[in-house]
Amino acid sequence: MSKKVVTLGEIMLRLSTPGFERFVQSDSFDVTYGGGEANVAVAVTNYGSNGVFVSKVPDNAIGQAAINHLRRYGVDTQYVARGGKRLGIYFLETGASARASQVIYDRADAAISEVDASEFDWDAIFEGADWFHTTGITPALSDKAAALTLDALKAAKAKGITTSIDLNYRKKLWSKEKAQSVMTELCKYVDVCIGNEEDAETTLGFKSEGTDITKGELNLDGYKSVFKQMKEKFGFKFIASTLRESHSASDNGWSALVYDGNEFYHTKQYEVRIVDRVGSGDSFASGLIHGLVTGMSMADAAEFGVAASALKHTIPGDLNHATLSEVATLMKGDASGRVQR
Amino acid sequence: MSKKVVTLGEIMLRLSTPGFERFVQSDSFDVTYGGGEANVAVAVTNYGSNGVFVSKVPDNAIGQAAINHLRRYGVDTQYVARGGKRLGIYFLETGASARASQVIYDRADAAISEVDASEFDWDAIFEGADWFHTTGITPALSDKAAALTLDALKAAKAKGITTSIDLNYRKKLWSKEKAQSVMTELCKYVDVCIGNEEDAETTLGFKSEGTDITKGELNLDGYKSVFKQMKEKFGFKFIASTLRESHSASDNGWSALVYDGNEFYHTKQYEVRIVDRVGSGDSFASGLIHGLVTGMSMADAAEFGVAASALKHTIPGDLNHATLSEVATLMKGDASGRVQR
Amino acid sequence: MSKKVVTLGEIMLRLSTPGFERFVQSDSFDVTYGGGEANVAVAVTNYGSNGVFVSKVPDNAIGQAAINHLRRYGVDTQYVARGGKRLGIYFLETGASARASQVIYDRADAAISEVDASEFDWDAIFEGADWFHTTGITPALSDKAAALTLDALKAAKAKGITTSIDLNYRKKLWSKEKAQSVMTELCKYVDVCIGNEEDAETTLGFKSEGTDITKGELNLDGYKSVFKQMKEKFGFKFIASTLRESHSASDNGWSALVYDGNEFYHTKQYEVRIVDRVGSGDSFASGLIHGLVTGMSMADAAEFGVAASALKHTIPGDLNHATLSEVATLMKGDASGRVQR
Amino acid sequence: MSKKVVTLGEIMLRLSTPGFERFVQSDSFDVTYGGGEANVAVAVTNYGSNGVFVSKVPDNAIGQAAINHLRRYGVDTQYVARGGKRLGIYFLETGASARASQVIYDRADAAISEVDASEFDWDAIFEGADWFHTTGITPALSDKAAALTLDALKAAKAKGITTSIDLNYRKKLWSKEKAQSVMTELCKYVDVCIGNEEDAETTLGFKSEGTDITKGELNLDGYKSVFKQMKEKFGFKFIASTLRESHSASDNGWSALVYDGNEFYHTKQYEVRIVDRVGSGDSFASGLIHGLVTGMSMADAAEFGVAASALKHTIPGDLNHATLSEVATLMKGDASGRVQR
Amino acid sequence: MSKKVVTLGEIMLRLSTPGFERFVQSDSFDVTYGGGEANVAVAVTNYGSNGVFVSKVPDNAIGQAAINHLRRYGVDTQYVARGGKRLGIYFLETGASARASQVIYDRADAAISEVDASEFDWDAIFEGADWFHTTGITPALSDKAAALTLDALKAAKAKGITTSIDLNYRKKLWSKEKAQSVMTELCKYVDVCIGNEEDAETTLGFKSEGTDITKGELNLDGYKSVFKQMKEKFGFKFIASTLRESHSASDNGWSALVYDGNEFYHTKQYEVRIVDRVGSGDSFASGLIHGLVTGMSMADAAEFGVAASALKHTIPGDLNHATLSEVATLMKGDASGRVQR
Amino acid sequence: MSKKVVTLGEIMLRLSTPGFERFVQSDSFDVTYGGGEANVAVAVTNYGSNGVFVSKVPDNAIGQAAINHLRRYGVDTQYVARGGKRLGIYFLETGASARASQVIYDRADAAISEVDASEFDWDAIFEGADWFHTTGITPALSDKAAALTLDALKAAKAKGITTSIDLNYRKKLWSKEKAQSVMTELCKYVDVCIGNEEDAETTLGFKSEGTDITKGELNLDGYKSVFKQMKEKFGFKFIASTLRESHSASDNGWSALVYDGNEFYHTKQYEVRIVDRVGSGDSFASGLIHGLVTGMSMADAAEFGVAASALKHTIPGDLNHATLSEVATLMKGDASGRVQR
Repeated sequence: MSKKVVTLGEIMLRLSTPGFERFVQSDSFDVTYGGGEANVAVAVTNYGSNGVFVSKVPDNAIGQAAINHLRRYGVDTQYVARGGKRLGIYFLETGASARASQVIYDRADAAISEVDASEFDWDAIFEGADWFHTTGITPALSDKAAALTLDALKAAKAKGITTSIDLNYRKKLWSKEKAQSVMTELCKYVDVCIGNEEDAETTLGFKSEGTDITKGELNLDGYKSVFKQMKEKFGFKFIASTLRESHSASDNGWSALVYDGNEFYHTKQYEVRIVDRVGSGDSFASGLIHGLVTGMSMADAAEFGVAASALKHTIPGDLNHATLSEVATLMKGDASGRVQR
Repeated sequence: MSKKVVTLGEIMLRLSTPGFERFVQSDSFDVTYGGGEANVAVAVTNYGSNGVFVSKVPDNAIGQAAINHLRRYGVDTQYVARGGKRLGIYFLETGASARASQVIYDRADAAISEVDASEFDWDAIFEGADWFHTTGITPALSDKAAALTLDALKAAKAKGITTSIDLNYRKKLWSKEKAQSVMTELCKYVDVCIGNEEDAETTLGFKSEGTDITKGELNLDGYKSVFKQMKEKFGFKFIASTLRESHSASDNGWSALVYDGNEFYHTKQYEVRIVDRVGSGDSFASGLIHGLVTGMSMADAAEFGVAASALKHTIPGDLNHATLSEVATLMKGDASGRVQR
Repeated sequence: MSKKVVTLGEIMLRLSTPGFERFVQSDSFDVTYGGGEANVAVAVTNYGSNGVFVSKVPDNAIGQAAINHLRRYGVDTQYVARGGKRLGIYFLETGASARASQVIYDRADAAISEVDASEFDWDAIFEGADWFHTTGITPALSDKAAALTLDALKAAKAKGITTSIDLNYRKKLWSKEKAQSVMTELCKYVDVCIGNEEDAETTLGFKSEGTDITKGELNLDGYKSVFKQMKEKFGFKFIASTLRESHSASDNGWSALVYDGNEFYHTKQYEVRIVDRVGSGDSFASGLIHGLVTGMSMADAAEFGVAASALKHTIPGDLNHATLSEVATLMKGDASGRVQR
Repeated sequence: MSKKVVTLGEIMLRLSTPGFERFVQSDSFDVTYGGGEANVAVAVTNYGSNGVFVSKVPDNAIGQAAINHLRRYGVDTQYVARGGKRLGIYFLETGASARASQVIYDRADAAISEVDASEFDWDAIFEGADWFHTTGITPALSDKAAALTLDALKAAKAKGITTSIDLNYRKKLWSKEKAQSVMTELCKYVDVCIGNEEDAETTLGFKSEGTDITKGELNLDGYKSVFKQMKEKFGFKFIASTLRESHSASDNGWSALVYDGNEFYHTKQYEVRIVDRVGSGDSFASGLIHGLVTGMSMADAAEFGVAASALKHTIPGDLNHATLSEVATLMKGDASGRVQR
Repeated sequence: MSKKVVTLGEIMLRLSTPGFERFVQSDSFDVTYGGGEANVAVAVTNYGSNGVFVSKVPDNAIGQAAINHLRRYGVDTQYVARGGKRLGIYFLETGASARASQVIYDRADAAISEVDASEFDWDAIFEGADWFHTTGITPALSDKAAALTLDALKAAKAKGITTSIDLNYRKKLWSKEKAQSVMTELCKYVDVCIGNEEDAETTLGFKSEGTDITKGELNLDGYKSVFKQMKEKFGFKFIASTLRESHSASDNGWSALVYDGNEFYHTKQYEVRIVDRVGSGDSFASGLIHGLVTGMSMADAAEFGVAASALKHTIPGDLNHATLSEVATLMKGDASGRVQR
Repeated sequence: MSKKVVTLGEIMLRLSTPGFERFVQSDSFDVTYGGGEANVAVAVTNYGSNGVFVSKVPDNAIGQAAINHLRRYGVDTQYVARGGKRLGIYFLETGASARASQVIYDRADAAISEVDASEFDWDAIFEGADWFHTTGITPALSDKAAALTLDALKAAKAKGITTSIDLNYRKKLWSKEKAQSVMTELCKYVDVCIGNEEDAETTLGFKSEGTDITKGELNLDGYKSVFKQMKEKFGFKFIASTLRESHSASDNGWSALVYDGNEFYHTKQYEVRIVDRVGSGDSFASGLIHGLVTGMSMADAAEFGVAASALKHTIPGDLNHATLSEVATLMKGDASGRVQR
């Protein structure tokens, strides 16, 4: 039977230049919609779960289009509230070789940031749910959004639902100090913590020494030390991080490290030729969640997550449309990319 | 010698769906940049004046792209300030037949709304200028923007520069009461007042009776009565209004009425098949300004303005790229549209 | 509370040339998905009902994309069966002026034509339903599809659900004789019969004299005579037909005639400038159904249907995305198409 | 059996802005290839003849692409010579309403203008041919091209092949005086003369009084007087002219007048909504030629030509892809544009 | 003098998503036409031969567009029969990195599968021909198509024309058993056999041990053993296979092995960055045929074929538009890709 | 304070096929405008200088669009003369892997080639200027253009402005002999000479032995010997060359060698994944000029130039839109291409 996976967060209008055009060159934008938690809702639905996305969008055609984008991929959007001023936007231009991709956020005053707790009936939302996921972006949007996130986590824990969070520090949304203060409280209600590279330090204050992320060299020992500290402080069931080796904007190494308090497991590393890397962290999170919610071992779930997200790097847009069968093929070691007829 | 025409206002990112797609259908947006006063700056430059646009845009690539769009058409953008949070956006879907075009504004907190008077050196800006133009949109954006508009009008008047304003009431930006209070003050410094249909009532409180704008029937007597009241109260040198007969989203009748205190002049009426009617009011204003600043009679200037804006209806985007020669041909009565080789 | 409206039929991949390109010119096709009954499901959902679409699509990514297209617009697709050989396709090139639009069908062996009754649980599907709609296309696809249609109609009637059919004769799918034999049986279970122009004759054998559809002149007397015969033979509660005056591929007159056994009601006639007229009959049907299922009078429902479908002519694709508010504006007589800001 | 129709002339690269964009707005051009005589070769092939196009293109990939464009539509290009400097280009922006379409020619030094008589074996080219067609553009390109045209006409006449010319005066290519001197000589070898509006005066010196082409009012008497003079001087078998009423760049009236020395025949007049009117004159010429070469009466051939070219106005590009069956439907009076399924 | 190369097979409509979009994301398809034998006809024509393609397409505009696509590139399509139900279709989404390209076939009931021997006059078709080529796909389409293939091979052999076949096993079209039964008979009339990887086993029953095609490691010894068995059983003059090392969907190693009964020749191996690898096997076959039909040695022909097909990997669509000069440059060892001005 | 950098040369319309399409496949061209010296004007303006471009374009909308393209990026175009026959054009198809990009020039009779010295007021142009740059392409266009180039160089030297030239030999424009004769004279007035690979030999007659540019192996000793000869003969202050290792059309090694008479400096070498390499030489020149005109050391200026041009390889079009901050990041050694948020 399908698992029910609930996510809470922002969905944004994504406006990206075609091909490798720069913002100053472009006369059209490709339009999709996405955001950390929405991306997870789509991906777990894609793997067979019943993904439910909770958010708020403005009551106009742009808000409706965002909802439609999720419905298209099967996500249950019945709990998305309507109202507020606007849909958050982000602009993306895709880099190549030594030229980095650029993201310009225009998300202030998004509908979700003015959310009121009364707009959501957590009892109904969590009815029959197996998992709840959110990220460190949602509480960073506003105090109201942070309060809502805390409500949701508490409600989920009260119902015995497994909870996960992707730390995802966004320096333009809040300071380290504010982040640490809020996230430390939220993490009390979290079972699975996913911490992308520098996030553990910025949002929780743990130091991962010796990793220079501009070099992309992996410092597994540093990660392990941080994971142990996190386990100790918060008692997470699982801690996970993707590990990116940024050779260039076109080619990356990609793997993940997971920890359950006993064992560290470092997945296979994939060398990926990048089509669109936005949302790759979310695709790892959703793969890991899919694995764990359907009963895989920690190692298998991590391998599923990293293979799924390796495939995501080849798919335009925020969303991961890799199929279960494609992930399975890659996990079995066939990265040959031979035409499937 | 070229005339120098300065305009002050907002420039927005315009995101429009291709063809006749609705927002909920569209996977790409056409990208241009425009706004009432920017449109006027481009058009007068196109007719040979030195158009100067004064505004504020965010210090990022989207703000730069807006500036670039104006520079492309020769506008002097050296006085555009940089800073603030974001560039205002408007979303457009183009209607047809009985389906109206839809505009969704997302312009709150645009850079220009947080402008500070100290960012602009009016002495330098108005050096050698012949005309200053703005619209009722700019003061509606924020109190700071309203104060800036007043500063600019006063500075222009102090230098003996002719000033014009297009009333352009935007009901989502402010109330009638607020509009009337602010605009009544601004109009003291205005020589030429352009009042599109219901604007005279909403922003200045004059009643134009008997015109049902959803029917598109012209009530010239109503207009004349209002114009007389406006003349009396503010002493404008010229008052002008476009007159639209909206047969449908695809076909409109289009003319203008002008008044100098003595004579009413109703221009030729054009039947236009519409490609893109956004910016048509601005194209009339810029045509009228071009006529007046280059010494045409009121009637000739009005005919120039209405012919130019009839052509604008056939051009995609906010901006009018009709050439002087095309306007002249149409004014002479040749609307045959025969291929020019 | 939302009404539940179930429709049964085929969904096809629609491949249309961009702009006015002909098939032999085109190097790309615009991709959407649609079909008579799917179009109705989308439109009634758009007006606030819970539209449920019942069909069968192949178990591949093209079938999935068809489902996704309906989900995007909120349709419940949980009862769509998977399997069979292929998704039906139709190619469309859009005409203009005296050049007619061309449709090439490639729908043989579509999944829905090999459907087995056991694939659908009508009890579950009709649980709580208020309306069931199908068309004369579905039974024309294959004997299996005809049998399924009969099953569905019987099941609906047994549950007291209002049923409607759009006759929609397709001469490439079956002969008049076969059509009349099958449709006569089906119509026994139908409450509301919608018969587009020559359909009444071809599928039910009633003669509407004196209407030359290539001229587009309306022969209301002929229609009335046919409607009376239909009422007499089948006892339909309502009979309706759209009335098209084909001035050209670009401009049509558009109205509808409805009959309840007592009164004939001829709606307002709209002159429409055409963007895409495919699916306009379906948009009338869905508007009429919306009206009737939400308790409007016959005349109001017909006016809603014809106004809604007048708007459909301006929207690309098979689907009608006109909003309730747009339909209401047009019904109130405002066809001015003025920009909505 | 298929007729063989040979045409001689230039083929150009056509670069047109998408939609209604102006040159100064456009970031891409639609690419096709065409030219008066190439357009005729394609159209007669489309109607079932064996069209042969004789020309010269540069020996590079752009020249090859031009040939490929004609081959795609079945034209025999084996006699196209290779060499010379470049392919002629024309830029097109499509007008609407009162805004005229603009053509910018960039055709100087095109390969065909430096053609040498020895590059063409007229014996082989005219083997089994039924018709030869060229236009007044070809001799205007250069003295060499004029000499080649004369060679071709003489060779055709020597073989008893029917010859036709479309006068097509291009003021940017040569003066009236030069045109009259050259064309007068060429017309000695011409059987069918097609003279578009002012061409008869500019290229042959005959005065058609009282027609103001910017108004589009038809002055049939003026045409008749000119046709009689032309008949008298050159003894043409048939003289024909299209008659355009230019209501605007979007809507035209369209008919033709033909004369055989005895009878004047004015065809039905069509009101056309324009998609692309470039090549409409060529589409009349090719329709007329098709009619005459397959044995229709003058009146029927003219009706075929004008119906075919009315349809051309709805097809993007220079070429007419209207089918025989579409032309027949329109000739029979069905301009209803109803969807063909 | 040009050689005449005849090919027999299916031509399909190819619908591919733009860029790297997946089927479920895409709102438009790029349209081309291709198929194994059509691709060979285009490529040999591109190298200077007279390519003749024999097939059957439906008598509608889609069938015509397929023919036009081949005519565009100079192929003689006069022997293509018209009729039948439909044109076969294949959908393509292009992979990248570890994500494989996906092909969905929708080719059942294509016109060619219902072909009748009487529709083709092999005497006329083979008049003056130098080579006949087909593939194992054609006989797999239907028994009628298999019978036609046998007819064609026999007719070719009777005229002393060199014959070639590309085994091309398609598991969705027939079983191994059926394939072996049919192909064994066909191969009696074949001079040159091209066997892509696993085809030799599936269609002819020869075992190539030790090659795991998902790894892409080459097992030349295995190939040699199979080639010897093939030579022994069928007496082929030449046996050839491409050898692909699938590093990923983005990067492949590419070479070929050929055998004439005496000598094995392994060509240079190219590392190709892939733009579009569909049709690369056909581009090898056509290059090899070009080499052999124009008198190159086996080794030179194989080098030509593998260089030509290495270039094909960089060209969108099924067809190879690499020029003779580009192939020659690459064969000479210049793979530097420096801009040619 | 901003530096003023003047450049003189041709601006062309660039027509490139989308993606990796070949000319014979393409139905649209992407439109930009560029040319060696225009590209430099844009790039130095991008880095903060006041770039002034001097040229001549035809007095039509295509010429205007070229000017607009430069104005968009801030270049001062007030000294561009209007007139002449046409804008030069170049066609571009982008290669990949072993397939080289193809450029077809169609630039004969461009406006700039018929330039008259009287059209330019060098006193005004050079007023306050810091640098003058041109290339070996301009004098190659015509004798008049060569004379103009000499005028400009002399006028610049007379005003004490630093001058630079990029040798840029174009074999289709002139012979080696003509080039050497003209360039030898021009170089007398040059301070900084940039010589791309074989240019030093073809245009100045210096032999760089042992570099096979089709292999891409660097022969630094050969370069050094040539640079010394150049220094000796012309007394250049700086001599520079980019060094390209052409692994394929997709991947290149990229560095530069500079010499000031004392020291040779070989920059860091970048491995670039290519999006568009047209204009990369110009982007090096403009980076070097930016460095030198703003007071960097030779080594720093060269590192700036080579980093800037490494980034250019990732940007579509001729122009370099890499920002100062992106260049700085790359110079500091961060080529990781991590997303910038």
